[in-house]
Amino acid sequence: MVRKRKQGSVVQMGVDYYPEQWDPSLWEQDIQLMKVTGIRVVRVAEFAWSRLEPTSGFFDFAWLDSVLDLFYKYDISVVVGTPTNTPPRWLTELRPDILPLFADGSVYYPGVRGHRCYNSESVDIYGMRIIEKMAEHFGKHPAVIGWQTDNEFGMVDCHCPRCRVKFREWVKRKYGSLEEVNRAWGTVVWSGEYSDWCQLDAPMGGSPHQNPSYLLDYTRFQWESVAEFQHNQIEMIRKHCPRHFITHNFHSYPQRLDLYRVGKELDFAAFDYYPNTSPAKQSTGPYSGALSLDATRGIKRRNFWIMEQLSGPPGCWFPMWRTPYPGFIRAFAWQAIARGADTVVHFRWRSAVAGAEQFWHGLIDHSNVPGRKFEEFAALCAEVNALSKRLSGTVLHHEVAILQSHEQLAALEIQPQAEGMNYYENLKDYHRSLTKLGIGCDVIDWKEPLDGYKLIVAPSLYLMDEETADRLERFAAAGGTVVLTSRSGVKNMDNQCVMLPLPGLLAQCAGVTVAEYDPVGDDVHEIVDLQGRSYKCRQWCDILSLRGAETVMRYGGDFYAGTPAVTVNPFGKGRVYYLGTHTEESYLKELFSRIAAEQDMKTFPGLPEGVQITIRSGKDKSFLFVLNLSREMVKISLPEAYVSVLYGEPRGVELELEPYGVDILEID
Amino acid sequence: MVRKRKQGSVVQMGVDYYPEQWDPSLWEQDIQLMKVTGIRVVRVAEFAWSRLEPTSGFFDFAWLDSVLDLFYKYDISVVVGTPTNTPPRWLTELRPDILPLFADGSVYYPGVRGHRCYNSESVDIYGMRIIEKMAEHFGKHPAVIGWQTDNEFGMVDCHCPRCRVKFREWVKRKYGSLEEVNRAWGTVVWSGEYSDWCQLDAPMGGSPHQNPSYLLDYTRFQWESVAEFQHNQIEMIRKHCPRHFITHNFHSYPQRLDLYRVGKELDFAAFDYYPNTSPAKQSTGPYSGALSLDATRGIKRRNFWIMEQLSGPPGCWFPMWRTPYPGFIRAFAWQAIARGADTVVHFRWRSAVAGAEQFWHGLIDHSNVPGRKFEEFAALCAEVNALSKRLSGTVLHHEVAILQSHEQLAALEIQPQAEGMNYYENLKDYHRSLTKLGIGCDVIDWKEPLDGYKLIVAPSLYLMDEETADRLERFAAAGGTVVLTSRSGVKNMDNQCVMLPLPGLLAQCAGVTVAEYDPVGDDVHEIVDLQGRSYKCRQWCDILSLRGAETVMRYGGDFYAGTPAVTVNPFGKGRVYYLGTHTEESYLKELFSRIAAEQDMKTFPGLPEGVQITIRSGKDKSFLFVLNLSREMVKISLPEAYVSVLYGEPRGVELELEPYGVDILEID
Amino acid sequence: MVRKRKQGSVVQMGVDYYPEQWDPSLWEQDIQLMKVTGIRVVRVAEFAWSRLEPTSGFFDFAWLDSVLDLFYKYDISVVVGTPTNTPPRWLTELRPDILPLFADGSVYYPGVRGHRCYNSESVDIYGMRIIEKMAEHFGKHPAVIGWQTDNEFGMVDCHCPRCRVKFREWVKRKYGSLEEVNRAWGTVVWSGEYSDWCQLDAPMGGSPHQNPSYLLDYTRFQWESVAEFQHNQIEMIRKHCPRHFITHNFHSYPQRLDLYRVGKELDFAAFDYYPNTSPAKQSTGPYSGALSLDATRGIKRRNFWIMEQLSGPPGCWFPMWRTPYPGFIRAFAWQAIARGADTVVHFRWRSAVAGAEQFWHGLIDHSNVPGRKFEEFAALCAEVNALSKRLSGTVLHHEVAILQSHEQLAALEIQPQAEGMNYYENLKDYHRSLTKLGIGCDVIDWKEPLDGYKLIVAPSLYLMDEETADRLERFAAAGGTVVLTSRSGVKNMDNQCVMLPLPGLLAQCAGVTVAEYDPVGDDVHEIVDLQGRSYKCRQWCDILSLRGAETVMRYGGDFYAGTPAVTVNPFGKGRVYYLGTHTEESYLKELFSRIAAEQDMKTFPGLPEGVQITIRSGKDKSFLFVLNLSREMVKISLPEAYVSVLYGEPRGVELELEPYGVDILEID
Repeated sequence: MVRKRKQGSVVQMGVDYYPEQWDPSLWEQDIQLMKVTGIRVVRVAEFAWSRLEPTSGFFDFAWLDSVLDLFYKYDISVVVGTPTNTPPRWLTELRPDILPLFADGSVYYPGVRGHRCYNSESVDIYGMRIIEKMAEHFGKHPAVIGWQTDNEFGMVDCHCPRCRVKFREWVKRKYGSLEEVNRAWGTVVWSGEYSDWCQLDAPMGGSPHQNPSYLLDYTRFQWESVAEFQHNQIEMIRKHCPRHFITHNFHSYPQRLDLYRVGKELDFAAFDYYPNTSPAKQSTGPYSGALSLDATRGIKRRNFWIMEQLSGPPGCWFPMWRTPYPGFIRAFAWQAIARGADTVVHFRWRSAVAGAEQFWHGLIDHSNVPGRKFEEFAALCAEVNALSKRLSGTVLHHEVAILQSHEQLAALEIQPQAEGMNYYENLKDYHRSLTKLGIGCDVIDWKEPLDGYKLIVAPSLYLMDEETADRLERFAAAGGTVVLTSRSGVKNMDNQCVMLPLPGLLAQCAGVTVAEYDPVGDDVHEIVDLQGRSYKCRQWCDILSLRGAETVMRYGGDFYAGTPAVTVNPFGKGRVYYLGTHTEESYLKELFSRIAAEQDMKTFPGLPEGVQITIRSGKDKSFLFVLNLSREMVKISLPEAYVSVLYGEPRGVELELEPYGVDILEID
Repeated sequence: MVRKRKQGSVVQMGVDYYPEQWDPSLWEQDIQLMKVTGIRVVRVAEFAWSRLEPTSGFFDFAWLDSVLDLFYKYDISVVVGTPTNTPPRWLTELRPDILPLFADGSVYYPGVRGHRCYNSESVDIYGMRIIEKMAEHFGKHPAVIGWQTDNEFGMVDCHCPRCRVKFREWVKRKYGSLEEVNRAWGTVVWSGEYSDWCQLDAPMGGSPHQNPSYLLDYTRFQWESVAEFQHNQIEMIRKHCPRHFITHNFHSYPQRLDLYRVGKELDFAAFDYYPNTSPAKQSTGPYSGALSLDATRGIKRRNFWIMEQLSGPPGCWFPMWRTPYPGFIRAFAWQAIARGADTVVHFRWRSAVAGAEQFWHGLIDHSNVPGRKFEEFAALCAEVNALSKRLSGTVLHHEVAILQSHEQLAALEIQPQAEGMNYYENLKDYHRSLTKLGIGCDVIDWKEPLDGYKLIVAPSLYLMDEETADRLERFAAAGGTVVLTSRSGVKNMDNQCVMLPLPGLLAQCAGVTVAEYDPVGDDVHEIVDLQGRSYKCRQWCDILSLRGAETVMRYGGDFYAGTPAVTVNPFGKGRVYYLGTHTEESYLKELFSRIAAEQDMKTFPGLPEGVQITIRSGKDKSFLFVLNLSREMVKISLPEAYVSVLYGEPRGVELELEPYGVDILEID
Repeated sequence: MVRKRKQGSVVQMGVDYYPEQWDPSLWEQDIQLMKVTGIRVVRVAEFAWSRLEPTSGFFDFAWLDSVLDLFYKYDISVVVGTPTNTPPRWLTELRPDILPLFADGSVYYPGVRGHRCYNSESVDIYGMRIIEKMAEHFGKHPAVIGWQTDNEFGMVDCHCPRCRVKFREWVKRKYGSLEEVNRAWGTVVWSGEYSDWCQLDAPMGGSPHQNPSYLLDYTRFQWESVAEFQHNQIEMIRKHCPRHFITHNFHSYPQRLDLYRVGKELDFAAFDYYPNTSPAKQSTGPYSGALSLDATRGIKRRNFWIMEQLSGPPGCWFPMWRTPYPGFIRAFAWQAIARGADTVVHFRWRSAVAGAEQFWHGLIDHSNVPGRKFEEFAALCAEVNALSKRLSGTVLHHEVAILQSHEQLAALEIQPQAEGMNYYENLKDYHRSLTKLGIGCDVIDWKEPLDGYKLIVAPSLYLMDEETADRLERFAAAGGTVVLTSRSGVKNMDNQCVMLPLPGLLAQCAGVTVAEYDPVGDDVHEIVDLQGRSYKCRQWCDILSLRGAETVMRYGGDFYAGTPAVTVNPFGKGRVYYLGTHTEESYLKELFSRIAAEQDMKTFPGLPEGVQITIRSGKDKSFLFVLNLSREMVKISLPEAYVSVLYGEPRGVELELEPYGVDILEID
């Protein structure tokens, strides 16, 4: 058990490797070069089912044993993926029921990835059979240290006969009676009441006019299906490989997936990180990347792995992205570490010459001639290895948390509120504003305990229950600051509107009620402060009645000009801010600076565009990561002079960083 | 019978109410508040099938009786909707053949609205059974005054087996023989000739390459299906409720629906009116709204009801609209009355807290706390009730009619003529130009008699028959003015091009023929008058040969520069104008001013943008409605000083109206 | 056999005629007017199956005999189309398996065109039966001179059961064993290995994530299906009509179709030419038209026919185009002849009054009153007939060839390389640059011999084999110039990436290797010459290592600023240029001027926009066609003074042409 934890938290570099795709004559020379390059870990086998079980029940593990032997020989650890993401041809032929069906009844055909229904009986039988064999067999191999379940879970919006039946059972379990279903979903509207269980089906056809309570429950059912699908895999692996860790490679937020439910049984989370290489994305990309990394750390509230890290232009079924600029590969790997990644595994060793992913480029191009990108990666490996001992075991401590919720995301997608209003994009705005002030923050599930934080930012908690309202109230009462926004407390957990003045259960702590609202969408409005400074706002304008709160900002126009737009309510020892509208970044920075001052939180004012600062702390020492994720040369003013542990040199209070430059300073 | 007529023509206010969606404890307090607010009528039950017949053959009318008793107690009249728009779950389970099928064979699944094929045998059996029960039962309740059939008919473009068979029968009845079908549709083109009736099917697959004559006939068949579906309902209601009126709530023009055929058996038409609240739509919205209202009045050529009037932002399956500006709710209700609405029923009493329509806002928000919008509505009710006696029985008399035609609309959608050319959008341009000059007009079916008018505007009568050509000729010969446009007389009623110089059967009265045409689409061209003033035109340029007509405007460019673009032909005692191109509004106003002068018609020149003027006349008195449907303060010059019956004050010849201001002046 | 050749190469005018669509009373008057107009040939019958075989096995050829007799009487030759493009209703009723199925399983319903699977057994049986009857019967008619197979072949992307089985057989024949299939397609990626032939299916569902090697082979299979479908028709016609020519009317390049394979058995190719009439397209349209014509000439590397030439605005299932400007019809017909068309057949005699093509306008409008367009056509006929003797037998000789490849096109569509990068659009850029310099060029299949050329332009030969690489090397070694571009030599013929530095097999002759690439897409970059002049480039930037080549142009920006962008490598007696990026036209003209000077090729520098120059040469005389395909008056400087054979007048060295003006000069 010690080994597992240790392995999980070593700061090290890895690559994804597909031995089955290459001539065996290349294996040893590849692995030798990995060793020389400083690679400590690889991931293998997550798409290799057809090689591991070429026909039903005939297992061939010998070739992978040879590869694992070579890794062991060169002292490189191995993470084995379970291959359930790509059921082989013999299985889809034998058991076509394994294939998902879309809402229109069409088939998710094989020949791609992810072509298995999580609820399929066949995936149970055949998937668990090979996982048992693999766990038994590879669990004993000394090179293996852990497992990845499947690959990049997403919500397969399946409507196959088994999903339809299992959904009905799920609804029965949740509600007990049809009367309760009819009540919870409000089916009386449009005469949709169920009089017999057999009428209850998956939402076929995909009409957006379907009942939103029902649609949200179908989404929840599919979320649980993913978690149960993984649960069986984890139980099997734990049984045979008790000393190995188990993780999963999440990807592409926002996902219609309950990350926390899926993450629950994992030892740690992993993420597939493909920061956008386009120059046009350089002003926002590094910040949404930061959010993804913080959100991944939030899944288990601990450090994580990157299981796939960008190594070259992605492409294939879409036009290729730009090649990463010099320094880009290195800088974004450091960004991952700076935000809590321990191991960073680059995707992939060499670009595929065959199959659908030929232009999802690896570190080495098809020609097998290492080039500029590989050189940058090799230098990065050397840097990471040099610092590994010092950084291993260090973690991030923050005073701020942003609450995120897949249920809010799903409910707000089911019923879009206003043109241009997007739950996750708004989350990005809050996170980016904090990041630009150098305020580190956690991004955690909205159901998590809030202890230890000074500030909770809770955008659009649209669905609300008493437990959460109480938790937020207690947090504020105890001295914390809470930032609430419009579209909070609108609904109960059944996705029905509450018959309360908004923000509903949060009205008391907010000290305001919403008298009316104006879904302004993309029409630009403005808010004005007491000094007359104005800021743009969009999407939504709540017209507020003060119920104890004070006005912070007023609307600058429309028929509600002069009425409160942003308020603050003293609540116990703390404060609750309410943002009636979605403002531009410059106001959010203003607001968070004010709160930081009130709460005595550290900020790094004046950070240049693209510069990100985080701190990893260990028992004795802490390390300040300063990253220039831009194409410009920048100067950063630091509170004092530190020593660079990356370059082994002292630095002044003014730090200069080249484009995509990185520094790591020991700060105590 | 007297009661029915009377009820139909009282000027009064109403709301849509869904007692089945609310806890019975709310019923009496809701109805009491309605009474206090001045509401005189409600609509109920059109989506309540699952409550009225919870399982097949078990009817439960008691709960609705209780509600009706309360309405009767508070002296509020009730319109009952037939519930066929939303067949309940037990019915779609028992008789899945009731569900429509799209052209690609996919199912119109239940859980939404409108999921019934008009031709379905099941809707006949089960729909008529509940209507019979309801008519028998509620027909006797003293609160009930009338019925609404179904809800917001649209053309369900169904391709179910029954539609396919019934279409074949319809074609057999229409044409008698396959020879005649082959001729009428011109199936010889592309070898599409039918040699056996069994080859004749609905247009499956939805290809736009299908034969246009066939596609138009399928549309006509579907139009008739709607009318027949309603016919059975009406017969049943008339049998049991001979003293009740019957109406239907039309919506969202243009509809692929034969409004006149559906309207034929109704006592009066009704409309669901949702004027656009977006500031970006404020320059066109009030005018297209005016067209919708005039078109609704034209369905029966008499006053009508609004069965659903906007009360707050719509939304749900699309991002919510803006909240109505102060005065908006009042002004657009008065606009409806000004154009012939007698009763105006607002949708809905209170926003739904459950189901798919939660964000299609009512007068009272989810919180059940009446707010600004409700106050505006309450004041409006008081105003309307105060004037009800004077306004009841008054009607609109116009000297101008615009001909509209669902057949032209459908045929022009089947074969788009030019980029940017849209039959209904062009109709809007003609109507708006007249409205801006203060020239009231009717919008009537192109097949209606034309007696009593001075000017007929007939945009793009693309399909033409001898009867219509004769009617227009006789109208002009007798002294009327006709305005024809390009794309007139192009086709016969089989949707085949005529082998005649265009405008075909209208060439003689137009006094021009089309030598050639240039589908200029979005390329901007210009027309020039004899004084050299030029106006923009688009879409289409007919190159004309004069056959008796005189040139009014010439083209300003292209190889046909200098040739006639607009002509006028003296015809008998009248005149026929021909517009070879689609011009900008400023020219249309110029043209209609000229015609108004020629025909001695009253105009209101110089109306500010957004101001609309109409006159409702009774036996003794007439009332001039002056509406400012804009966000600007305006001044309007009137021909003389009148007394405001709305405010009970004399007014000068210069009338000042605030944003969304309304006045009603007694003019004789 | 003599007659066939002769008929094929006479310069003459024709029309498409559909006697079955018109009342027989019109036939003789139509044909008389054709004769008077100077028409020498017509095409008939390609959509007339339902009239030629009204029910299965009952043939009615009498009506067409009458028409052919009239044509014979008026000395107009006839090309008969085989009617397989439109199987009649009785056939789709009797044998619904004839209908193609789309990738999602939906049906290609009848009532349109092209609704037959090329692999269908029914099209074999019933299609070949009527072709045999027609060939036997009409083959003897003296008016008939040749045949057109089917109509406008395209790749029907069919997925019917028969296609699925035949594809499996095709794969078996191509690869012999599943091991070889798995290797060639690289199915190991994503566990897609086949363990049994029955797992191998057509690419159902249409996911872009499918294996690209497999997708390319399915496309090749469909290409061969078209060719085999036509092969049977040709064999049958040759058997019964040994003296008749056989052609096919290709259309709308680029086509996902192997033009060369389909063209192989034809006597000559034909093309359906609809130059775009929109003013917005006037700067590019005439050049892409020129490419289409050159590409059609390249199918058989000999003169060709136009089987459908624009006569008025197309439209019907899309908004109509603009009417052709005065001179447009004439000028584009002459453009076709100037580039190797012998016979030009205009589509169509008279616009259809019925069916789906009513607004695909003919020479005469629906009214049957000949107008401006007809007059222009009639004058054109007179001109062509006057020059027919001199022009017949003349051909084009060029020193430049552009290689085109449907395999590259398909492979690059399967895996898009960069935003804005389009194989055929790039081909247009190269062709247009040459055309603007007055450099005539051939557009030939990439597999053709290269003898006789001085310059080969080979854009993006993405798939590469040894034979082609050798051929290009030999061509350069012998003194030719080759222009290669980025994305050359990327893949082998299995659509797998090569494990070689790019341009792979072409690296040696190019004298460069690609160290890395940047898919810049729509981001504008620049290249700079040694004098500092800069040009824009887009799409892609190869970062090049010189391996013997010299730098011609360098990149002007990004991290590879200053590195080679365009290179030239002396190779044997010749030179190989490599373009690492896609540049704007002005640079391509610069480059081609340089090569023309190096290779001593004639150019016409300073041609005004829209002016095109070609030469048709006979045994004794050559004719210089000078076309002004613009709406501006132009002046063209010629190397010496010639005599106009079109106008019978001497011309100076400065030639003035009116908008859409044409001249033809005898040059030796």
